[in-house]
Amino acid sequence: MNKPEIVILGAGYGGMMATVKLQKLLRPNDAQITVVNKHDYHYQTTRLHEAAAGTIHDDLTRIPIREVVDLNKINLIQDTVVEIKWQEKEVRLENGVVKYDILVIGLGFEAETKEIPGLDKHAFTMQSFNSARFLRNHLQYNFAKYHYEKEQNDARLNIVVGGGGFTGIELMGELANRIPQLCEEYDINKAKVRMIILESSSSILPDLDPQLIEYASNSLESRGVEIITNASLKECKPESVVYEKDGKQLTIQTMTTVWCGGVRANSIVEKSGLSTSNGKVEVEPSLQAPQADDVFVIGDCALIMNRDGSAYPSTAQFAIQQANVISDNITRLVRGQKKLREFKPKTRGTVVSLGHNDAVGMIINDRKLYGWKATVTKKMIENQYLVKLGGFGLLMRKGKFNLFY
Amino acid sequence: MNKPEIVILGAGYGGMMATVKLQKLLRPNDAQITVVNKHDYHYQTTRLHEAAAGTIHDDLTRIPIREVVDLNKINLIQDTVVEIKWQEKEVRLENGVVKYDILVIGLGFEAETKEIPGLDKHAFTMQSFNSARFLRNHLQYNFAKYHYEKEQNDARLNIVVGGGGFTGIELMGELANRIPQLCEEYDINKAKVRMIILESSSSILPDLDPQLIEYASNSLESRGVEIITNASLKECKPESVVYEKDGKQLTIQTMTTVWCGGVRANSIVEKSGLSTSNGKVEVEPSLQAPQADDVFVIGDCALIMNRDGSAYPSTAQFAIQQANVISDNITRLVRGQKKLREFKPKTRGTVVSLGHNDAVGMIINDRKLYGWKATVTKKMIENQYLVKLGGFGLLMRKGKFNLFY
Repeated sequence: MNKPEIVILGAGYGGMMATVKLQKLLRPNDAQITVVNKHDYHYQTTRLHEAAAGTIHDDLTRIPIREVVDLNKINLIQDTVVEIKWQEKEVRLENGVVKYDILVIGLGFEAETKEIPGLDKHAFTMQSFNSARFLRNHLQYNFAKYHYEKEQNDARLNIVVGGGGFTGIELMGELANRIPQLCEEYDINKAKVRMIILESSSSILPDLDPQLIEYASNSLESRGVEIITNASLKECKPESVVYEKDGKQLTIQTMTTVWCGGVRANSIVEKSGLSTSNGKVEVEPSLQAPQADDVFVIGDCALIMNRDGSAYPSTAQFAIQQANVISDNITRLVRGQKKLREFKPKTRGTVVSLGHNDAVGMIINDRKLYGWKATVTKKMIENQYLVKLGGFGLLMRKGKFNLFY
Repeated sequence: MNKPEIVILGAGYGGMMATVKLQKLLRPNDAQITVVNKHDYHYQTTRLHEAAAGTIHDDLTRIPIREVVDLNKINLIQDTVVEIKWQEKEVRLENGVVKYDILVIGLGFEAETKEIPGLDKHAFTMQSFNSARFLRNHLQYNFAKYHYEKEQNDARLNIVVGGGGFTGIELMGELANRIPQLCEEYDINKAKVRMIILESSSSILPDLDPQLIEYASNSLESRGVEIITNASLKECKPESVVYEKDGKQLTIQTMTTVWCGGVRANSIVEKSGLSTSNGKVEVEPSLQAPQADDVFVIGDCALIMNRDGSAYPSTAQFAIQQANVISDNITRLVRGQKKLREFKPKTRGTVVSLGHNDAVGMIINDRKLYGWKATVTKKMIENQYLVKLGGFGLLMRKGKFNLFY
């Protein structure tokens, strides 16, 4: 082919890292690389819970794209993807159309809010930088308004997190640290505030080891968090939330419900007509879409099956590993090579943060980690990512150096 | 009399300063001093515009009462005054009754919002620490929500200040500095934001010299503020404000209207049955109420006439001077002296802040001040107050040392 057009949709963990790698692997004459993204920044989804709670400034969780790729060599189109027409080799954007020779779909996830009435209108989600930033402001606004109103409304002080998986627990871990600060700042008796996790199954963090679950529960409960299991969310209203437990319907007064219960791949993928399972493209070992070998899929939009027939989780860890394979395979295609590399996920372990100074996790060889060791590990994983993405300079600007704090 | 009960209602500039002075003048055996105040803190009303705009942290504008008076010697009742029954020598509080031998009424002002429909429900005022703090949060909340909503609503970005007097101008001066920061933080194009002053008379700051008015107008307009004179506010709605100019009714889309147009003395004073004029007690030269020589009135609740028949403005400056006279006179009464001191207001000049680095004012001998000289003067006036109130320690904690910045 002539100088091929490589188009990368989405600057999440996968798309951003693939771009950075391709920039290194390909010479300017080999191909033209174009990134399409809604914003001119990349954000670390795995750190949004900190921005949402307000324990760090939200700007620490986002990275201007120009800081990690060379925009003299790479095109950045700031626009929203509307439709992927893979049979015509083009992508329709809100403000235009982009043609490609090779496509990378890294459009991330969206919150699954349709099943429960009111969720899409009245609940917060942790799906974007803007939603995390707005949640921080919303919390602060309600605490400030509490003493401003003549009739004090306790719904302003109660916080309900729907879903006790990784996202919900990490968010609550931060909130449990942040709420006492907000109480002090806005002259509110901490005993007035309720922080509640509603989890539909019989345990939070169901994929973790029971010992780690117990540790996490204790850590949260000691800071005033109520964990309600076997509780399924039934309806979200502007000032309350309804859930069912033991066959009874119960109501909590709250203006802040955060839905961390379920996500799905960006629905644009399913609408594209590529064959999907649960909204994701079940990719080849080379990470190509089965119907179109000029389309690669990465991160939340890709379905990768384990040998035992279960799917690998869509984590930042795997998205980054996939970026390595995809950038390698695209380079081979551009250079006319036939044989492509296969993706072999390496599980490096999982660490769940419980606030800036507590965490639990499993690392290689199923070693369990608690407390400060887990915290340090988590922060080091995040720092490693920054180094991979933007080198030492980016680490200096956005890294976490208070490892033990 | 036996050890008399001195009760001071309100810990504003007047009440707080009178308490501090009385604590110095009287020995513990001379009298029991009790302060009744809604909160356990005093706040500097003259600095609320900074807290409201968010250019300083709001905690800098308030001072815990225990930091300036010795609560081993002085009683603090944290409660709200409901009724002053001066004929029975008692004050009804929300949660009790307090008897007095000598009373000081320093209950401050309230915003006059009844004349214009919707003002009391939908407009902000600058009348308390809580309202200033909430305004800061409200602004930030709307800027954060702007990009969070699917349909962007410009009413979130427009700010209307009703009234171009001292309060309105000082608030707008701060906002004009703060808004560019908020725009940068929340990715908002500054050109989208409108900052509007609606003034019903033909000029802002009508009591000032025309040269100073011109300077102030230029300072604000150069930072993007629109000043609309001869504009009378007609109605305030949740998302707009209606005003009349040249016989036409005009509407501005805004969720933030701040009413700085008119204040009146706390209405409890008028309801007490003490004879009032415009809601204020026209006090004797000794600052006693004409009907009750055991009642002193200070600050916004007191009416003091000039020789030319006009009233002195209710400023912090005069309230502090009155505190000197009242504490002196109360000491004389307690010691059985008949002859009381007369209050003679000394006008030291006026400085209007236009933001942290600009101001205009007139000082003694009608000398005009502009720019940094006025700023420094203003900051020094505020620092002097802190020294008088709580000594060098309080100055260190709450003072302004960035005099030239």
